[in-house]
Amino acid sequence: MSLVVQKYGGSSVADAEGIKRVAKRIVEAKKRGHQVVVVVSAMGDTTDELIDLASEVSPITSGREYDMLLTAGERISMALLAMSIKSLGHEAQSFTGSQAGVITDSVHNKARIIDVTPGRIQAALDEGNIAIVAGFQGVSQDSKDITTLGRGGSDTTAVALAAALNAEVCEIYTDVDGVFTADPRVVKKARKIDWISFGDMLELASSGSKVLLHRCVEYARRYNIPIHVRSSFSGLPGTWVSNEPRVGDDAMEQALISGVAHDTSEAKVTIVGVPDKPGEAAAIFRTVADAELNIDMVVQNVSAASTGLTDISFTLPRTDGKKAIEALERRKAQIGFDSLRYDDQVAKISLVGAGMKTNPGVTATFFEALSNAGVNIELISTSEIRISVVTRQDDVNEAVRVVHTAFGLDSDSEEAVVYGGTGR
Amino acid sequence: MSLVVQKYGGSSVADAEGIKRVAKRIVEAKKRGHQVVVVVSAMGDTTDELIDLASEVSPITSGREYDMLLTAGERISMALLAMSIKSLGHEAQSFTGSQAGVITDSVHNKARIIDVTPGRIQAALDEGNIAIVAGFQGVSQDSKDITTLGRGGSDTTAVALAAALNAEVCEIYTDVDGVFTADPRVVKKARKIDWISFGDMLELASSGSKVLLHRCVEYARRYNIPIHVRSSFSGLPGTWVSNEPRVGDDAMEQALISGVAHDTSEAKVTIVGVPDKPGEAAAIFRTVADAELNIDMVVQNVSAASTGLTDISFTLPRTDGKKAIEALERRKAQIGFDSLRYDDQVAKISLVGAGMKTNPGVTATFFEALSNAGVNIELISTSEIRISVVTRQDDVNEAVRVVHTAFGLDSDSEEAVVYGGTGR
Repeated sequence: MSLVVQKYGGSSVADAEGIKRVAKRIVEAKKRGHQVVVVVSAMGDTTDELIDLASEVSPITSGREYDMLLTAGERISMALLAMSIKSLGHEAQSFTGSQAGVITDSVHNKARIIDVTPGRIQAALDEGNIAIVAGFQGVSQDSKDITTLGRGGSDTTAVALAAALNAEVCEIYTDVDGVFTADPRVVKKARKIDWISFGDMLELASSGSKVLLHRCVEYARRYNIPIHVRSSFSGLPGTWVSNEPRVGDDAMEQALISGVAHDTSEAKVTIVGVPDKPGEAAAIFRTVADAELNIDMVVQNVSAASTGLTDISFTLPRTDGKKAIEALERRKAQIGFDSLRYDDQVAKISLVGAGMKTNPGVTATFFEALSNAGVNIELISTSEIRISVVTRQDDVNEAVRVVHTAFGLDSDSEEAVVYGGTGR
Repeated sequence: MSLVVQKYGGSSVADAEGIKRVAKRIVEAKKRGHQVVVVVSAMGDTTDELIDLASEVSPITSGREYDMLLTAGERISMALLAMSIKSLGHEAQSFTGSQAGVITDSVHNKARIIDVTPGRIQAALDEGNIAIVAGFQGVSQDSKDITTLGRGGSDTTAVALAAALNAEVCEIYTDVDGVFTADPRVVKKARKIDWISFGDMLELASSGSKVLLHRCVEYARRYNIPIHVRSSFSGLPGTWVSNEPRVGDDAMEQALISGVAHDTSEAKVTIVGVPDKPGEAAAIFRTVADAELNIDMVVQNVSAASTGLTDISFTLPRTDGKKAIEALERRKAQIGFDSLRYDDQVAKISLVGAGMKTNPGVTATFFEALSNAGVNIELISTSEIRISVVTRQDDVNEAVRVVHTAFGLDSDSEEAVVYGGTGR
């Protein structure tokens, strides 16, 4: 009997109606003959409400107790889901992350899974039951304290359980019909992708696509667990993410270009007048690293021969911008630059596709499309299967649309439907 | 260093303000040099809201998943309380029932504590921390499933932890100033009791007093843990419940009468025309027991010599009334009675006090007071330290007041303050 892991996000179980709809979907999978393990997020806004409550009693927004608080949300949704399934005449048992054997390190609020020992889940399945597991949470190996996995944690729980239980597929149910060739809110003619490789999905995720988080896809690739991203509202087939297209599925060929992603959450920092000598870049990025800031794109051009000075730019999450500027200013003398420029009115547009490796025209087509639309390019960064540019934020929607059209990604119709918010 | 267990009910932590007020009170105890273990209920209406949600997705209102759902409430309140204490500069750690070592049987929704292994609590105390424990919940010894302790469960958690940790006292913080000689909502001149014995408190609890539940007091008596019931709002000294008054505390002598309790939640069933022969009562109460009904008072008077028939009356929770009538009707022929009478417009008034054992005038004074007020007595039942009567429900408030006055229990002023709802 094949085993399926299904994950439902917060928007899919936002209220009692949502829970009942999801319960029916789970029972359908069971009736089709699968063993079913379900990972569920907290209902709708529950987590935000808990965070609000916490802010009223304490300025502390991290640590052991914060994790204990936040994990209450999944406890509620998983118990309700199990009860709803039982009322449909099927046996279900719910398990906390700890009970499900999700073992993590001790870094509260963004713990990493280090082992999964799903003995109780396996026992529930062996008895013919459906197992419901709290997403987003685990238990620390050392202290046996409750931990949370941070952003996208429930998806990671699902993939980790799928790997530990040797599942056939990990189905991630969300409020969109799958992964699209661009954000359907920006590009009305975005197409749903039937199949995408782990590699391309990873690039999309790190370029601003929010359907799957990088961490979850990385985990799935490591253990070779196919992910099927689909809507809990429509029930339509969604997007398969795996190493290879499924055998016999003609539609699922490697596309030249998988999609266009964009990201408006970053800011650009430019360090002006850096002496062009060894060790300068190292000093700058050591400073940034010491401040525990995650940077994204880094660009340095050749220096002007006349001055011996160069400019270095990087992008990072806008929320970290102030800290980066402060950290750099403090070491201005040691590093020896002229000045800093900070710009948070930027956007990043990325074209992703393994096909571009063997197709030299891609870069040219990309830049021509932007140029024809009058979009100015401020930074460029490329990998083997991705090209990213930074532009003015005001231009981003137009830029995504023209690039999407230029690479023939437009659908004949406007097929995307967005059903709700996003889970965690 | 002496160890104090404090328990705060749902009304004490109904909102962020309540949590902050309770956090300050806990820190004060710590500053006075105590080791402090705190048991906390779910915030205000949280549990009711979860029950409402459950009723929307499933008709099932019991079992493993229901317990998993309900225990989310304490997880929220205990984490917030720990965070609030930390923001006051003291170290606190929260523990679920399972983490605190509250081991129960496997009877979901009304599990019984069978062992307490508070190793993690002790370790937290040894490190100088305040330990916050979720009330009302435990983990089953056999299946390692989450269980709840049923009504009054948090008080029982507190007493059980106090026993296991050899605490000096178990302080039960609630929304009234202590145990009163009568319900202050009925008797304005009710007096707060400074000290009451376990025995009298047990009788009051089973006679309708709701401040402490029978089960919690029984546990405290078994392990000889003094309970101090007091208000989390006023901070005044409350009522001590223990085996003996504390040495040197003159005010705490055994009173003749501890108090007057009343209960309007019961119904009266009368079985009319029962043959007065051996085995009849047994057949009746076996029938009731088979229907899993808990009966309270049972009264049978001598039979009328002329008929050889007698009447048997009993009281039971009104919510069980219908089941009792149905069960008895089904066995009418076997038992051989004439008819059944059911009356849910009754109330029970009880006078409690160990002093009455040695004071023969108590019963007379009690009945005279009721008679003078025109209150008709329908049933009488007595124990060594309690007299209970059943009257019309319409008469109950007046009956309680006149009895309270007749035994000199009236305070000179109206001292009782009721601050909020009641926790669980």
